[in-house]
Amino acid sequence: MPLGEFELIDRYFRELGAARSDVRLGVGDDGALLEVPPDRQLVAAIDTLVEGIHFPHDSPAASVGHRALAVNLSDVAAMGAEPAWALLALTLPLAEERWLAEFSRGFGSLARRFRVALVGGDTTRGPRCVTVQILGSVERGTALRRSGAAPGDAVLVSGTPGDATAGLALEQARLEVADAVVDRELRARFLYPTPRVALGRRLRDYATACIDVSDGLLADAGKLARASGCGVALDYDQLPVSAALVQAVGAARARELALTGGDDYELLFCVPPARLAALLRDLPPAEWLYQRIGALRAQHGAIVERGGSVIDFSHLGFDHFAERG
Amino acid sequence: MPLGEFELIDRYFRELGAARSDVRLGVGDDGALLEVPPDRQLVAAIDTLVEGIHFPHDSPAASVGHRALAVNLSDVAAMGAEPAWALLALTLPLAEERWLAEFSRGFGSLARRFRVALVGGDTTRGPRCVTVQILGSVERGTALRRSGAAPGDAVLVSGTPGDATAGLALEQARLEVADAVVDRELRARFLYPTPRVALGRRLRDYATACIDVSDGLLADAGKLARASGCGVALDYDQLPVSAALVQAVGAARARELALTGGDDYELLFCVPPARLAALLRDLPPAEWLYQRIGALRAQHGAIVERGGSVIDFSHLGFDHFAERG
Repeated sequence: MPLGEFELIDRYFRELGAARSDVRLGVGDDGALLEVPPDRQLVAAIDTLVEGIHFPHDSPAASVGHRALAVNLSDVAAMGAEPAWALLALTLPLAEERWLAEFSRGFGSLARRFRVALVGGDTTRGPRCVTVQILGSVERGTALRRSGAAPGDAVLVSGTPGDATAGLALEQARLEVADAVVDRELRARFLYPTPRVALGRRLRDYATACIDVSDGLLADAGKLARASGCGVALDYDQLPVSAALVQAVGAARARELALTGGDDYELLFCVPPARLAALLRDLPPAEWLYQRIGALRAQHGAIVERGGSVIDFSHLGFDHFAERG
Repeated sequence: MPLGEFELIDRYFRELGAARSDVRLGVGDDGALLEVPPDRQLVAAIDTLVEGIHFPHDSPAASVGHRALAVNLSDVAAMGAEPAWALLALTLPLAEERWLAEFSRGFGSLARRFRVALVGGDTTRGPRCVTVQILGSVERGTALRRSGAAPGDAVLVSGTPGDATAGLALEQARLEVADAVVDRELRARFLYPTPRVALGRRLRDYATACIDVSDGLLADAGKLARASGCGVALDYDQLPVSAALVQAVGAARARELALTGGDDYELLFCVPPARLAALLRDLPPAEWLYQRIGALRAQHGAIVERGGSVIDFSHLGFDHFAERG
């Protein structure tokens, strides 16, 4: 890009996010210089959002900025870690000032909320695409992983999965909802997801394993179970579905979306029976917004049960709205 | 991408690069878990290569993998830091096994050479684009920056800038060279640049500032000078140009490319007069491949002098090969 455009971008990205005393050198040199406390391990994750794949072409720029950071914060949350610094690689077809201003506002606002400093970046010309690298830390030896859980452990999930995929369908006009409040609520769940960082931090004292739910509850439960060397059975009737989602698509479809939707950025975690009472007492579900939805079992694979029989969800990955025209 | 493609990619990227004992958890969970030694600061940088912008459409996949890591290693080198871990965000139109195998080979080979472990990644579908996040560390308080140099400091550069831009022109058939050895040498300088990590580490004892030369020697010298609050004068007759480049484009054009070419990934650094003799003694230029090319001065701006007069390079950024047809 011409120098003028780089300078424009530099203006938006210098000092974006929180100010942190552990940043010795931020945006503007060849690299950032950061202080990791000696009793902690570094946590690193990277995620890319491509326009037309991970967000619609006409997405609000503030939402793109928010989501690019949120999906990474969700990875940090799933490790039980505390986010600290982010680097941003932004590819744009052109440097449009209004888009950049809105993108920065969305990114910066979420970054300040979670005390994340933007410490580096790279801006290039090309098809619109955002990669965020998140760095954080966790007290040595306490990080949550996908592995570590065992058959018999309770499986729990935060929030109400399925909302985000309905929100995306509304954004893409593949779904319509009469009620304006429901419409707005579901769209917001796609456009501005809330990473469960505080919950992830607290879960270190109770959970044996944890995963960020981004590809669909059932698929991600299966990944956690596989990493822990076992299988998982979810209880159809225990799936938490929001009133908004039920109103938008009906009760049965709401549960299907909760299981297979994607883009939720909730936490799915396992707690052994002996720790369950302590969890429910110390982190009241009504306050921390999570629900028990099943259990790990020795038999491999991920299944959904209802009243003793297994429901088939083998059409996983199917586009739930394509038929509606 | 369908699960099968993800599994294919996972196969290539799991355990790519060096094995390091400070990696507690690598590719395959929500994030990586890493140990930063307590007496060191973390160094982080991110760079994106977009197909058609940073590398030609038909570039060898091994070169794309090599360069994506090399440009980041060069940032770490410019800080005087030691690279340790990388995360890779790869966007591909389709998961072509042969391309992935070659890409991984190029990336993995350079990673092992510099003891870098690939600890995380994200693969998405979209226009081909590679973002690498590099992490490394440096002894507390010893990192090199762009700032810190002063008027009177000698300006030096490693290697022979200009070669890479000629190599790119050869790759794009915008330049032709009769001699096959020269042709191969210049192409290799673009396709497989060598990051100057060992030099950067040693320079911490001598240099007051350092920058990675990626956007052209003159432009990057100007950036370092600006960050150090001064200006810079380069000596035209001292510019190091390779015999291959002179043979390919002639002596005058070789110097122009050395000043303005880009993609060099050499180090430009400043050494105060009092430290210069020690540098030349401890790191013999013939062995470490660097040359003195000018000095910082109080007057702002970046100029090139020859025999006392200033040469105009205001056409900086001009496409040097476009006229040749």
